[in-house]
Amino acid sequence: MRLHHVGVAVDDLDGAIEMYENVFGAKVTHRASNDELDAAFLSAGDSEVELLRPRREDTPVGKFLARRGPGLHHIAFAVPNIRQALTDARARGLELIDHEPRIGLHGVPIAFIHPGSVGGVLTELVES
Amino acid sequence: MRLHHVGVAVDDLDGAIEMYENVFGAKVTHRASNDELDAAFLSAGDSEVELLRPRREDTPVGKFLARRGPGLHHIAFAVPNIRQALTDARARGLELIDHEPRIGLHGVPIAFIHPGSVGGVLTELVES
Repeated sequence: MRLHHVGVAVDDLDGAIEMYENVFGAKVTHRASNDELDAAFLSAGDSEVELLRPRREDTPVGKFLARRGPGLHHIAFAVPNIRQALTDARARGLELIDHEPRIGLHGVPIAFIHPGSVGGVLTELVES
Repeated sequence: MRLHHVGVAVDDLDGAIEMYENVFGAKVTHRASNDELDAAFLSAGDSEVELLRPRREDTPVGKFLARRGPGLHHIAFAVPNIRQALTDARARGLELIDHEPRIGLHGVPIAFIHPGSVGGVLTELVES
């Protein structure tokens, strides 16, 4: 098991980057956006902290922020083959959010597992 | 910045270990307890997933579980010198939960920073 990243929901991306830089000596490795999110990735040993700011309220992270405020959002584990990982997850009866892999903000295939199947933790698989 | 571990609150420690072993191929590196918690540490690359089951409801993790249910609880960053890290944190005006380091479940000095000072994320510093 390898932790790929921890996702943190923020309402001010530049402010959050500045806080992690100043308080924890973080370095931004890259930034990425899609139509739902602006994200920044901070190097954290062999994993990353992924800061996520929703672009609209009617997105999963937008709803999370509205409900709970900024904070820990998800964890992601690296898997060598995401299709195999999803087949295994289905065989174990886990509830998948993404039944097929999709390309995530890192540019590689990802899929989310429903928190109800994995101890209340929104969990992402990242092919890596 | 190095991610030392991610803390996950659970209500069934053995069940959670079994789930992480079966679904993610996790390995338990060690277990530890104090008067508030039973914990198991799962290797996750150069960081860990720390599963935390409270021993009583009137503990921080017990209250978290009662309020939110199982799920992501905190993240921890490794720091070379925790007293210096706390001095720096105070100088930046961060609100500390632990004003002095205490010995954590890993047997090394730790301290928690209040989530209100660090983007809603309960954040632990671990001397490592």
